[in-house]
Amino acid sequence: MAPDAMADARDRVLEEIRGADRFCLVTHEHPDGDALGSLVAMHRVLTELGKDSVMLMAADEFPLPYEYRFFDLSGLSTVPPGDIVDRTIVFLDCGNIDRTPLGIVKGDDVHILNIDHHHDNTRFGTVDLVDPEASCTAEIVWDLMRALGVEPDQELAEALYVGLVTDTGKFMYENTGPRAHVMAAELIAAGVDTHAVYRRLYEDMPFPKLELLARALRRVERHDGGALTMGRVTREDFDATGAEDSYTEGIIDHLRTVEGTKVAALAREIASENGTPVKKVSLRSTDGEVDVSAIARAGGGGGHRQAAGFSTVLGDDELVAFLREQVAAQLAPAST
Amino acid sequence: MAPDAMADARDRVLEEIRGADRFCLVTHEHPDGDALGSLVAMHRVLTELGKDSVMLMAADEFPLPYEYRFFDLSGLSTVPPGDIVDRTIVFLDCGNIDRTPLGIVKGDDVHILNIDHHHDNTRFGTVDLVDPEASCTAEIVWDLMRALGVEPDQELAEALYVGLVTDTGKFMYENTGPRAHVMAAELIAAGVDTHAVYRRLYEDMPFPKLELLARALRRVERHDGGALTMGRVTREDFDATGAEDSYTEGIIDHLRTVEGTKVAALAREIASENGTPVKKVSLRSTDGEVDVSAIARAGGGGGHRQAAGFSTVLGDDELVAFLREQVAAQLAPAST
Repeated sequence: MAPDAMADARDRVLEEIRGADRFCLVTHEHPDGDALGSLVAMHRVLTELGKDSVMLMAADEFPLPYEYRFFDLSGLSTVPPGDIVDRTIVFLDCGNIDRTPLGIVKGDDVHILNIDHHHDNTRFGTVDLVDPEASCTAEIVWDLMRALGVEPDQELAEALYVGLVTDTGKFMYENTGPRAHVMAAELIAAGVDTHAVYRRLYEDMPFPKLELLARALRRVERHDGGALTMGRVTREDFDATGAEDSYTEGIIDHLRTVEGTKVAALAREIASENGTPVKKVSLRSTDGEVDVSAIARAGGGGGHRQAAGFSTVLGDDELVAFLREQVAAQLAPAST
Repeated sequence: MAPDAMADARDRVLEEIRGADRFCLVTHEHPDGDALGSLVAMHRVLTELGKDSVMLMAADEFPLPYEYRFFDLSGLSTVPPGDIVDRTIVFLDCGNIDRTPLGIVKGDDVHILNIDHHHDNTRFGTVDLVDPEASCTAEIVWDLMRALGVEPDQELAEALYVGLVTDTGKFMYENTGPRAHVMAAELIAAGVDTHAVYRRLYEDMPFPKLELLARALRRVERHDGGALTMGRVTREDFDATGAEDSYTEGIIDHLRTVEGTKVAALAREIASENGTPVKKVSLRSTDGEVDVSAIARAGGGGGHRQAAGFSTVLGDDELVAFLREQVAAQLAPAST
């Protein structure tokens, strides 16, 4: 989006927020820190402005992963409000309208503000405020909050901070510009208890999570001179440790950081529905040389250039072959 | 140090830097990111001001741990310059004059600027600019740099950024206030390539380092209901993986984050000099409830309240007993 178009979209979103009274906020399925942080922060901004706001999430998202259970979700509904057609629908951190399983479809009668930072956002909104330069969707919400004259209290500041910290990988990813740090400084000055936030997000870690990591690290494989570093978590690992599926979070970062790695992949076996073993595959690109969202799309999934994923019924060997082929295709010198 | 005394010390340091022409910069033994970042940054500030500056480090510090080898150490000497008595000696990030093995002792004829952020700094300088509120020594150097009117180029900015990132644990430790983020924003705007810095510090990780982690995590022990979480790295682990001693860096963070942990300890066997096995013990406190610098001092070492260490010839069981006793003593309700 060109800078002018972005400024226009921002103005339109601000105008719509100021002009409307009733809102329904949604985010993507299996919400992460930025999805939940942006959702809760936007809800608080709207509430602070005296608007009627409902956050909407599917009932089957609960319980949330343990690290996100601290969010104050009062104001949340698991069924669409009866007057949803009269509400402005705000999508937050949602690259694709299909990634929210709420049966909301674009139509003349639904007014959608699409606020996101995913570069591959499908622009499904009535207004699309999509800024891939933003480190996280929370950064866009923070900007809107300031433009709307809302002063953050501690809870609002913490919701935004969670989005910032999780989507920048603790300020480590390439998307972390000066603006992200200015935002952090302001949020801490507004009362964020950083120690408490980090404890909730990254500490108070259930011991089975450490045991799961220990198991996963025992069978790391490197392929193609290390360009593909691959890990696996099996059903047996889950069963032996009592770990939940969400405890695999973070394992892939260990694979990603190994010298020479272009693409890190973690395959975890999830409970199969009808006897067919299903794997969820997470992908990370270490330096942007390989676009893992393209690999994920080839596998039937999606995501960012540097972080993406898909589900598959491929066996272990077939999966490795698929990934090696995909990585090799992107690393091959472009033909002229 | 009271705010007035701190401002005085800062003024005196600035005055000394402006007034003197020749400097010799030192830091603590086994330098970490903040020690090296502050050293290199101060050297560049002084050089930029047209001063004659020498960085001094003991020859046996080399080679540095792989993650710090990128520092530009031109201007470094491993023997004290012949005119050292005529030079202003600047100690950076050095809590105790004994922690630099260079034979520099305080005396009437040695002029020492002691610039540090360790709360237990022994104030050994002619001027002591010791600010425990600073997230890192680099933050103090950054402040001095600005007061001296030096504009950072990319290399100076990166040296400061390395100090900031490593001593705040990627902005995660309690010492990370708004000032740390403002500093980060300015340094990134001055040209820090954050992605390159993080790759050097945390990625491009030799595969044996991941193998060492996998081994260490297999034998984590929890004591006293989890208050003490303890890990070990044995000589066999080093031998089997080919890992260097510095590859143990970061393992303790995994122990620290386990739910319920008050103190995390990692003991690693180092090459024994005369047949007696020696262990280096690193300690971390998770929430400041236990002062691990006191435990380290009881063991003959030192450090910060939340991060400290010592060396010991205790056997495995004796070491566990010592640590349990020390932790229990601090967790016991104070007698009235």
